[in-house]
Amino acid sequence: MSILVVGSVAFDSIETPSGKVDHILGGAATHFSLAASYFTDVRVIAVVGEDFTAEHEAIFGKRGIDTDGIEHAPGLSFHWTGAYSGSLNEAKTLGTDLNVFAAFEPKIPEQYLDSEYLFLANIDPVLQSRVRAQMPKVKLVCGDTMNYWIADHRENLLKVLHDLDVLLVNDGETRMIAGETNMVKAADAVMAMGPKAIVVKHGEYGATGFFSDRVFEGAMSRPFRAPALPLAEVVDPTGAGDSFAGGFYGYIASQPELTPAVFRTAMFYGGVMGSFAVERFGTERLQAVTSEEINTRFELFREISHLEGARD
Amino acid sequence: MSILVVGSVAFDSIETPSGKVDHILGGAATHFSLAASYFTDVRVIAVVGEDFTAEHEAIFGKRGIDTDGIEHAPGLSFHWTGAYSGSLNEAKTLGTDLNVFAAFEPKIPEQYLDSEYLFLANIDPVLQSRVRAQMPKVKLVCGDTMNYWIADHRENLLKVLHDLDVLLVNDGETRMIAGETNMVKAADAVMAMGPKAIVVKHGEYGATGFFSDRVFEGAMSRPFRAPALPLAEVVDPTGAGDSFAGGFYGYIASQPELTPAVFRTAMFYGGVMGSFAVERFGTERLQAVTSEEINTRFELFREISHLEGARD
Repeated sequence: MSILVVGSVAFDSIETPSGKVDHILGGAATHFSLAASYFTDVRVIAVVGEDFTAEHEAIFGKRGIDTDGIEHAPGLSFHWTGAYSGSLNEAKTLGTDLNVFAAFEPKIPEQYLDSEYLFLANIDPVLQSRVRAQMPKVKLVCGDTMNYWIADHRENLLKVLHDLDVLLVNDGETRMIAGETNMVKAADAVMAMGPKAIVVKHGEYGATGFFSDRVFEGAMSRPFRAPALPLAEVVDPTGAGDSFAGGFYGYIASQPELTPAVFRTAMFYGGVMGSFAVERFGTERLQAVTSEEINTRFELFREISHLEGARD
Repeated sequence: MSILVVGSVAFDSIETPSGKVDHILGGAATHFSLAASYFTDVRVIAVVGEDFTAEHEAIFGKRGIDTDGIEHAPGLSFHWTGAYSGSLNEAKTLGTDLNVFAAFEPKIPEQYLDSEYLFLANIDPVLQSRVRAQMPKVKLVCGDTMNYWIADHRENLLKVLHDLDVLLVNDGETRMIAGETNMVKAADAVMAMGPKAIVVKHGEYGATGFFSDRVFEGAMSRPFRAPALPLAEVVDPTGAGDSFAGGFYGYIASQPELTPAVFRTAMFYGGVMGSFAVERFGTERLQAVTSEEINTRFELFREISHLEGARD
């Protein structure tokens, strides 16, 4: 089944303890689509500037990602500059140049309207709502957001949440949306705003899925914890969350039905794709990973978290 | 098999968002022994003052814990005053009155010398070493420590680490001992100092076990992640780490042999006992939990972390 993703296709300039890169391909929709492309068909809605060349487009093309929805506008692409230090858990944003993204009006190509899965990557909630409204027949809607929209665009964000099936956010964002420090209560409060389920990403500690009674008709209201892989080297955490989302949602879209077992497995695949993403700068690793590597790492995730999973 | 534990038996005055208690029974050795008592025989080495009454001793007695090694000294018992706020992840120490603990000289009763498992709870590493030296025939030695000893008593702590089989510490302590922010590298650095394995406790995110090639002769060098239970209410986190240690080590001591599977299961039981401990102030919950509740919660831990674990 096809996933339609709307979000940023951008350039990143990043400094981490492992090195420094300038103007490499990035953006939430980019990381998401590359990760999801290993599981299902992906269509991208975004806007890029004149610095986005055929070479960049080919990165999507090689993974079979449909880029007809990427609009080319005069000017430069969205550009993010950031740095990480210490435990690499948090990026310090040094610059955000919206460029062509400032006037972005998502347009959905006719041939995308039959997409069954919609992913609203982290962009202005007004744009998220606008895309959502144009896809009334979609089967499942999953979305992301960030502290900036939670703090300063709350009303618009609440409209997005109202129509969301699954929200993917980190610990801090969950607590901030809910205004509650306890994670179980915070997740419940967020689900009361709309999402039937919420996947809270804990960075190096994995992720927890929380489920309302509405998601699987009461079958699975207990939380589910998926591990992250302890890594001796994290080269660049940029896009880890979007890659998690891509693996998670890509796997869901590849299955005939969203069952509790599919949801749990999807959370593992999310962690798997996130663990690859951080091994190299930008999208380098996600461009070149193989299905065999993905399967091997999935088994490794099982082994490090299951009582009977290991080859002792 | 019997566990010998040396550590504090104390009184705690605690304030959390759930309320306030004054001078309730606490201390690392107390939480540890109560949690471990559901799995195996426990013997305690500690010192208490005149405020430790027959009523307090009965709390140990009811759980079959051997208190012959608890020395009674003139004066008051060790008293800790602390408070928690916000996410309850960190205690703010408001007062530490060592009292009779200041001059504590651990004495091991003759009949304790055949204990096969030794747990060195968080006390002065000089005392930990002294007890360790008196138990040359012990089968396994597991220990804990804290930031104070790591920062200001490093040389003494290194001597303890040198002879330790398993170290149980939290994230911050692991990074501090190693002087390294990456957790995999930090765990390796700590294991190079002596411990064959290290269990890093992540609070609400569970725990990760790291293994050197020496622990299971190469059979299990991959890390293992055990979940924590997402709880809607944490009444009092005091002693959660010691209760984790009690469940973990108690289960290990109850098994004929320390295999990788036993280690993994022990980490789950650690989380189980920690999750009970925080449900009430002090040791209240650990005094009254039943084996059936422990088994039910163990299955819940499996369910929330295993792909095939849930009753869908």
